[in-house]
Amino acid sequence: MAEAASIENAMHRALDLATRGPATGVNPQVGCVILSPDGTPLAEGWHRGAGTPHAEVDALAKLPAGAARGATAVVTLEPCNHTGRTGPCAVALIDAGIARVVYAVADPGEHSAGGADRLRAAGVAVETGVLTDAATHLIEDWLVAARLGRPFVTLKWASSLDGRAAAADGSSQWITGPAARADVHRRRAAAGAIVVGTGTALADDPALTARDDTGGLLPTQPLPVVVGRRALPAGAQLRRHPLAPLFHPGDDLPGLLRDLRERGIRRVFIEGGPTLASAFVAAGLVDEYLVYLAPTLLGGGRLALGDIGVTTIGEQRRLQLAAVDRLGDDLLLTARPAPKVEH
Amino acid sequence: MAEAASIENAMHRALDLATRGPATGVNPQVGCVILSPDGTPLAEGWHRGAGTPHAEVDALAKLPAGAARGATAVVTLEPCNHTGRTGPCAVALIDAGIARVVYAVADPGEHSAGGADRLRAAGVAVETGVLTDAATHLIEDWLVAARLGRPFVTLKWASSLDGRAAAADGSSQWITGPAARADVHRRRAAAGAIVVGTGTALADDPALTARDDTGGLLPTQPLPVVVGRRALPAGAQLRRHPLAPLFHPGDDLPGLLRDLRERGIRRVFIEGGPTLASAFVAAGLVDEYLVYLAPTLLGGGRLALGDIGVTTIGEQRRLQLAAVDRLGDDLLLTARPAPKVEH
Ligand SMILES: NC(=O)c1ccc[n+]([C@@H]2O[C@H](COP(=O)([O-])OP(=O)(O)OC[C@H]3O[C@@H](n4cnc5c(N)ncnc54)[C@H](OP(=O)(O)O)[C@@H]3O)[C@@H](O)[C@H]2O)c1
Ligand SMILES: NC(=O)c1ccc[n+]([C@@H]2O[C@H](COP(=O)([O-])OP(=O)(O)OC[C@H]3O[C@@H](n4cnc5c(N)ncnc54)[C@H](OP(=O)(O)O)[C@@H]3O)[C@@H](O)[C@H]2O)c1
Repeated sequence: MAEAASIENAMHRALDLATRGPATGVNPQVGCVILSPDGTPLAEGWHRGAGTPHAEVDALAKLPAGAARGATAVVTLEPCNHTGRTGPCAVALIDAGIARVVYAVADPGEHSAGGADRLRAAGVAVETGVLTDAATHLIEDWLVAARLGRPFVTLKWASSLDGRAAAADGSSQWITGPAARADVHRRRAAAGAIVVGTGTALADDPALTARDDTGGLLPTQPLPVVVGRRALPAGAQLRRHPLAPLFHPGDDLPGLLRDLRERGIRRVFIEGGPTLASAFVAAGLVDEYLVYLAPTLLGGGRLALGDIGVTTIGEQRRLQLAAVDRLGDDLLLTARPAPKVEH
Repeated sequence: MAEAASIENAMHRALDLATRGPATGVNPQVGCVILSPDGTPLAEGWHRGAGTPHAEVDALAKLPAGAARGATAVVTLEPCNHTGRTGPCAVALIDAGIARVVYAVADPGEHSAGGADRLRAAGVAVETGVLTDAATHLIEDWLVAARLGRPFVTLKWASSLDGRAAAADGSSQWITGPAARADVHRRRAAAGAIVVGTGTALADDPALTARDDTGGLLPTQPLPVVVGRRALPAGAQLRRHPLAPLFHPGDDLPGLLRDLRERGIRRVFIEGGPTLASAFVAAGLVDEYLVYLAPTLLGGGRLALGDIGVTTIGEQRRLQLAAVDRLGDDLLLTARPAPKVEH
């Protein structure tokens, strides 16, 4: 039987293959490697987008009939159990005589999940837990959409080491340095929408465009979204954005996110301010936190995050630090909600 | 002439030698390496504490008469110009015929500085700037004492990613994990005094002892210092500390630090709370910041740092990040005041 090391190598390869598929399609990026019983790679496949064969079927199609008998399929996502434009992958693997399936991430889809159970019922050995974090990260927006029917939400703020977003008089240019600000622009361009509250829109008059180092517009521009009831003045910079801004009252944040998803938006970047950011945190709607920390102290009352509905330490919102990066003099901390501990 | 690389190697060696001297004496730890004109090490020396030869003299003493003629002295601290229990090192180097001196840190001492000038006046080539940060760090407490006549001050706090020291109801056990808390205990043991405000002493009833993982007392205990006018109840844990606590009203923080220095204390560890911490920051009395950041969000009004006298962004207290360490799930950020930029 293939060793743990060759399984892990195959999963690395499957993750590479997955990225050949379209990153912004309706379907997830998935890769698959078929290994002989002794761990030799026999075939590779990946998913090229909606309406095309799934990764497992793509890989099996490259083998002569009977060649997959007794083999191991290493696949980044649990094989589906769903008859859509293509048949269920679980059945294709069973029919090909696959003896063992190793997958990284469980399929959360309402219609497509259950593949692992179906394989087991047919006597196939099924395992998971290999490179699960990396595979989850690759398709995080698709997973959030499949589980929760909304886009993946990133909340960003910049603060001093003592958690302030501005000095007492409201001045905040600049707390973080040019490297941190350039990083924000790159990430804006990777999102489908940038969301700000009316407080920020009125106070800062932001352009909300994704720009390069010279101030030129990056090729992809996210949809600017302004949340709140107050109106923007006619001369606001946002009114000159290449895309017409979306205005939303903000009384139903899950509804806003569903609306964005229906417009085909898969990733939302929330830029604050503190009041709106706190509302998203309190509602449990944040999948990823980007905290740009500047090595400076400000004191005073202008906090990067306000009240989030926590009154006692037992209610704290535990996060998991995914990465710590230096950006010039600043630090970027990337964090995600910690998995709930079961008692 | 010795190359830059051999000079830097010699300085690394001199720093190692320096640490052989006593770390907690009245004098600084200093090391010296004598190099031949082609960069070959000829002799090494270090300072063994007050009343013993300085590092340069110690190194020269290991060479036969005349052997140092034309050589380079690489020394961690600027050679002194002071006749105390030993003669000025600058003169000893000149008399030995040393042609070139490279030092890492300038001597800030009122009586001992001026060695570089004296060497130059005698025709010796003098250079600095090699491993200056490392050499400064090694004797930072001595340098602060020599420049400012007070102990080296470390301010520590623990906070959530959003800068809170406790939840809204005051509960704070635990924000950081066991690795961060153990690190605090190790650093307590390395300080001469631990300082807290009466707010913290009354709210938390801390023992202020340095303890090991099993709760046992570490061999060295810092002096506990309580700052403020309110009295501690008779049953307070602090009253059972192996050392009698020092009580100070706190109206003159520089005076408190001078007092501690006169008691022979070289390093002070300020543990808060927020009010006292902010007073030290506002007074510009902090040499090092230790920020233990837990990956959690709390919101609410219990900030790790309060008002520090900054009203507009131009007055921000810029720091320099010296280190970023992971301690379990937490981060420890070590920062120092940024050098003032001259305009
Ligand atoms: N350091 C940073 O990273 C950063 C980032 C952004 C902004 N800022 C600073 O933050 C300041 C503005 O802060 P802010 O808190 O007033 O602005 P904000 O969070 O941008 O806007 C708050 C407003 O959003 C609206 N809103 C809509 N839905 C809401 C909901 N569900 N919950 C709460 N509010 C909702 C409300 O306005 P209506 O009354 O109009 O409904 C509310 O007053 C500016 O000075 C800006 O410079 C800093
Ligand atoms: N997360 C952390 O790292 C951390 C660390 C320590 C404490 N805490 C928390 O902080 C809370 C206590 O906070 P706190 O701010 O009330 O306590 P604090 O800073 O320990 O004490 C404040 C008191 O110090 C006295 N003081 C003496 N000299 C002063 C000066 N120059 N400036 C200002 N105050 C001076 C004053 O008391 P008098 O009226 O008696 O003169 C003042 O009320 C506790 O809940 C504790 O758990 C958190």
